[in-house]
Amino acid sequence: MSVAQSLRAISKRASPAQCLQAQKARSWQQHRALATHVPPVTQDNTSSQGPTAMVFMNMGGPSTTDEVHGFLSRLFADGDLIPLGPLQGYLGPFIAKRRTPKIQKQYADIGGGSPIRKWSEYQCEEMCKILDKIRPESAPHKPYVAFRYADPLTEEMYAKLLEDGFGKGKGGRAVAFTQYPQYSCSTTGSSLNELWKWRQRMESPRRNSNLTAAEAEGSINWSVIDRWPTHPGLVEAFAQNIEATLQTYPEDVRDSVVLLYSAHSLPMSVVNRGDPYPAEVAATVWAVQQRLGHKNPYRLVWQSQVGPSAWLGAQTSDTVANLVKKGQKDLVLIPIAFTSDHIETLFEIDQEVIHEANELGADGRVRRAESLNGNPIFIRGLADIAKSHLDSGEACSRQMGLRCPGCKSERCLEQKKFFLGQNERNNDAVAL
Amino acid sequence: MSVAQSLRAISKRASPAQCLQAQKARSWQQHRALATHVPPVTQDNTSSQGPTAMVFMNMGGPSTTDEVHGFLSRLFADGDLIPLGPLQGYLGPFIAKRRTPKIQKQYADIGGGSPIRKWSEYQCEEMCKILDKIRPESAPHKPYVAFRYADPLTEEMYAKLLEDGFGKGKGGRAVAFTQYPQYSCSTTGSSLNELWKWRQRMESPRRNSNLTAAEAEGSINWSVIDRWPTHPGLVEAFAQNIEATLQTYPEDVRDSVVLLYSAHSLPMSVVNRGDPYPAEVAATVWAVQQRLGHKNPYRLVWQSQVGPSAWLGAQTSDTVANLVKKGQKDLVLIPIAFTSDHIETLFEIDQEVIHEANELGADGRVRRAESLNGNPIFIRGLADIAKSHLDSGEACSRQMGLRCPGCKSERCLEQKKFFLGQNERNNDAVAL
Repeated sequence: MSVAQSLRAISKRASPAQCLQAQKARSWQQHRALATHVPPVTQDNTSSQGPTAMVFMNMGGPSTTDEVHGFLSRLFADGDLIPLGPLQGYLGPFIAKRRTPKIQKQYADIGGGSPIRKWSEYQCEEMCKILDKIRPESAPHKPYVAFRYADPLTEEMYAKLLEDGFGKGKGGRAVAFTQYPQYSCSTTGSSLNELWKWRQRMESPRRNSNLTAAEAEGSINWSVIDRWPTHPGLVEAFAQNIEATLQTYPEDVRDSVVLLYSAHSLPMSVVNRGDPYPAEVAATVWAVQQRLGHKNPYRLVWQSQVGPSAWLGAQTSDTVANLVKKGQKDLVLIPIAFTSDHIETLFEIDQEVIHEANELGADGRVRRAESLNGNPIFIRGLADIAKSHLDSGEACSRQMGLRCPGCKSERCLEQKKFFLGQNERNNDAVAL
Repeated sequence: MSVAQSLRAISKRASPAQCLQAQKARSWQQHRALATHVPPVTQDNTSSQGPTAMVFMNMGGPSTTDEVHGFLSRLFADGDLIPLGPLQGYLGPFIAKRRTPKIQKQYADIGGGSPIRKWSEYQCEEMCKILDKIRPESAPHKPYVAFRYADPLTEEMYAKLLEDGFGKGKGGRAVAFTQYPQYSCSTTGSSLNELWKWRQRMESPRRNSNLTAAEAEGSINWSVIDRWPTHPGLVEAFAQNIEATLQTYPEDVRDSVVLLYSAHSLPMSVVNRGDPYPAEVAATVWAVQQRLGHKNPYRLVWQSQVGPSAWLGAQTSDTVANLVKKGQKDLVLIPIAFTSDHIETLFEIDQEVIHEANELGADGRVRRAESLNGNPIFIRGLADIAKSHLDSGEACSRQMGLRCPGCKSERCLEQKKFFLGQNERNNDAVAL
């Protein structure tokens, strides 16, 4: 995701809308202090189903400008996201270092950092509160966040899990809940590879000789929520945000507004390998359109392409420009593959795309639907997804077990074997 | 579609399965003779809602080997399907002529011709019988077929409509019902452009100076069913065919069989222009997977790529080969974007892809789900789609009015204006 962020964020400044967003985020931080504190728990191997660790996985973003260099370093080191080949170890740090000052300035301009940590922690905490009510048998549900490129990193999250009494001989149940609704090897796949890597380092006797036999035996039982592109809660939250934006147009043009569902693009090399993401994003779009009764014309478009290689289109920016030039000025952009604001919404859409549209004469009629962020319908949806997953007793979906047909990654293979292998343990737990 | 047909069909012979298919088609022809004959009707401008012409649009295929040259000539002349630029008029006939002998042989090998005409006529007739019962107010519903590249061509269909008492001063209602469930400018778009062209030639006073004022005034009222990718009848028919194929696998492997939904690919130039087809095919696939309870892992893959330019992948043939090489031999191929058998199923999948899989050691475990053909659930679904359309009083969907963001075709623009303009006439008709 943030490859584009890195490149596109170089030359523009923050808008009043972005400053407002930052204010909102700050006031939300005050609100967060009111959230119920869930104390650490102690487990043993023979306990009932609870407590349950709910781990939200996402890419993350730098919360402060000081985190930008680390963020970019990890991003350009990730071959699942940006395959730079055998030179990754040299090229990655070089590119990251060169870009850091400009990206720092950019994050400063949008309020000092990405709001993704605040939103992720809020969403997870609120979801856990609901889960405690609707699924008391696995309560307490304890919220954790694991980011791929920013704090809290997967290793921090894992260390905290162990500190809080999970694993190390005590077993316990943890759910890796991707916050990418649609599965891509570049996103959820990369996060799962990272989780598997740290699990091996911290809890596998083959990788960690400090572990006692009992500790190795009583490692954490993991399961994975790997995709949820058409969950009714997600669809309803998107639909309501779109309807709210449509209400800002005069009634006589409202049904003619074109809806542009915009998702981060993928390189064609990844698409052609068989990555499931484009089809799952399309499934989300169709579900939202159905919920809206297909009242408005629409297109699924793809943003944030970068570099010289071929990416999946049509491009969001080109589409907006083409439509505005043809006289179709009333357009709503809907970020459809990310669940909170990030630099691709706050900067790329709000600043670049909409700014260009206005320069072409859109007169402020190209607008963006709000991101899901703290949307209560969305958060109730997350709780419902988690409940269904816990009820199912499955470690992961059958679909997750199928690598991309063109995949050659041994790490993906081992990761999938590991998570599929957890099925037996969880089913045993249910049987007990 | 048949570009690939042309190229791929060159070197292989028919299989026993294809001969069986041809036999089935012949026995179906006998059955067809039993279909109720719908007599020509006379209309006047002030009549009730019926009769209604139901026109199935599809690409078509040569019913006999004698039709192959004409079929290929039209195919390579269609700039909506195969954009050859300003040399289309020279290159098209040249390519068509050069390929004719080999393609004739290929059609001879699969039983003497494409079964698409037989199936289209059967599907349309059976649908009209159901419509007469479930929507008597617009009965009788009269079946017509209009193919883009083979008999019956659009102009034949249009002449027959006029002969049967529609238009020419008598008005009357006709529904252009695409038989491509998912909309592409290369398929449904091309058929609509052709229909618009012949409507202008035959019924527009600007294009046809032989028309009297009354004839021009009382032209046919057209409406369009332009897409139906997730209609429950379509989804159910696909799902049952898949379940039937899964039943042919031993119970212990049944849930591990990988489902490969295969659709005809598009050139990336068309995808990047904003063609809605890839997203709508993905919507169909997700709907079928949901109906099947996501029991089996799956991928959406793309077949029939041809030529040196970039096409959307992952490719069906590569995917099958990769999976079989990795040891995943149990695969079901599902043709997900065409509603009856054609050379891409009977030859490309059954002969090429499955043959290659067996050569790699698949041991007959790569199979194909049956095409929809005469499936009664599917045909009831078609009737339901038609009824909803007639009930709606809409000339076409709002979505159809939105050209691809990168479209530069004036013909597309005029065609869409024409069909959208029919809205007013149909709504008047309803008001009367």
